[in-house]
Amino acid sequence: MTRINYEFPLNEKTRTYLRIEHLLTQLHQNANAGDQNALYQFFQALFSILEVIERGDLKSDLLKDLEKHEKKLVSWSQYPGVDSSALSGLLEQVLKASGELSKTGRLGQDFKDDKFLASIKQRFSIPGGTCCFDLPHLHYWLNQPSEVIQRELDRWLANLHLLTTVISTDLKFIRERGKAKNLIAKNGFYQDSVEHVELLQISVDSDANSHPTVSGHKHRFAIRFMQLDADMNKVATEADIQFMLSCC
Amino acid sequence: MTRINYEFPLNEKTRTYLRIEHLLTQLHQNANAGDQNALYQFFQALFSILEVIERGDLKSDLLKDLEKHEKKLVSWSQYPGVDSSALSGLLEQVLKASGELSKTGRLGQDFKDDKFLASIKQRFSIPGGTCCFDLPHLHYWLNQPSEVIQRELDRWLANLHLLTTVISTDLKFIRERGKAKNLIAKNGFYQDSVEHVELLQISVDSDANSHPTVSGHKHRFAIRFMQLDADMNKVATEADIQFMLSCC
Repeated sequence: MTRINYEFPLNEKTRTYLRIEHLLTQLHQNANAGDQNALYQFFQALFSILEVIERGDLKSDLLKDLEKHEKKLVSWSQYPGVDSSALSGLLEQVLKASGELSKTGRLGQDFKDDKFLASIKQRFSIPGGTCCFDLPHLHYWLNQPSEVIQRELDRWLANLHLLTTVISTDLKFIRERGKAKNLIAKNGFYQDSVEHVELLQISVDSDANSHPTVSGHKHRFAIRFMQLDADMNKVATEADIQFMLSCC
Repeated sequence: MTRINYEFPLNEKTRTYLRIEHLLTQLHQNANAGDQNALYQFFQALFSILEVIERGDLKSDLLKDLEKHEKKLVSWSQYPGVDSSALSGLLEQVLKASGELSKTGRLGQDFKDDKFLASIKQRFSIPGGTCCFDLPHLHYWLNQPSEVIQRELDRWLANLHLLTTVISTDLKFIRERGKAKNLIAKNGFYQDSVEHVELLQISVDSDANSHPTVSGHKHRFAIRFMQLDADMNKVATEADIQFMLSCC
């Protein structure tokens, strides 16, 4: 019996952070896989990240969040009996991330000036559009000695290092806000009112054969458990479902 | 010193075959990689294949090609001193492929009726659009026991088996038509007239630091060698370039 963990953001900002985290995971895995197939997927993930960070005002959202975390840490440090060394470690982490972030230009700007990436980007949005004859210079590039390729990959990853750090710091703080509770969804349904929640973490036994779907916003949400029938249609679960919920 | 091999199709039909081959390679690699990241990429490749085979009339192109190969094999069998057992093996391969292809419905039809694939397909065209909260039922599916996942992957691969066989048989015949010649591109340029050529295979020493680009059609083509300068701009190579060319 294993548990399956789900996360549902309740606002657009957190949704964007999770999308970036999802893509960064793919990016790093493909950067380390060391074969040509993985390199195609590295570029695919990179271009998706650049497209996601283009939208909205990610930098200012992140700066505001880090400031909030900083204030909370400072206020906690005034509680009696608090572990002040752990707290100052966290505070240092937040201050470093927000300091570096405020000094940097627009996120992803370095990539805009990269002529090689610009010359291959468009073909990655066409199904099967990255063949050797579509992009012979990419094919040439992919056949260079591995140390030359690795140097370039490391340079691109370094350009994403700040984003990676800030997103993971921010999501860590958001995730640690919640406390998991054991609950039951009567007839597969559960709803609740909350205060300023940004993220729901739901964990369900794989034996329940059901997955959660969520609708809601920061003050109110509803969870409806669904299952896949024999024809792979999604149908509402009618049984009571035990699950763990953490409102972050 | 290694050689880099390039292929340039000279008509739309061969271009489509090569795109499908490129995507099938990605599909099979990801089906065998056995991690969640690879499974996302398996679906991405699968949806790209389905999109490519939707366009044009792939099935009738392939049937016409196989018929041409069959006629050629039959005419070769009348030459004196030919290896008739090898020839009849090839003929059997071609007849089997074309027999199965003509019996089948529209290529990719089985996938259209697959409700699970239909329910996740659209999100794969959105950058970062396949997070757990976008597709909780996919997240559930990905967390099933590996034997359940493998069974489904095998079923999808089996549905593509005929396409895989026919494309590889056809491309094998096209590729074997050519005979490689050693040539020199004076000042990085080479052109020639040909008869009914569908595919150019070009092979260049990696030391030449140059990659070919091709324009042309079945009767005439031009090859222009290019290189990437220090700023990663593509510039025309001015040196003479030794290369091997096979017109298929």
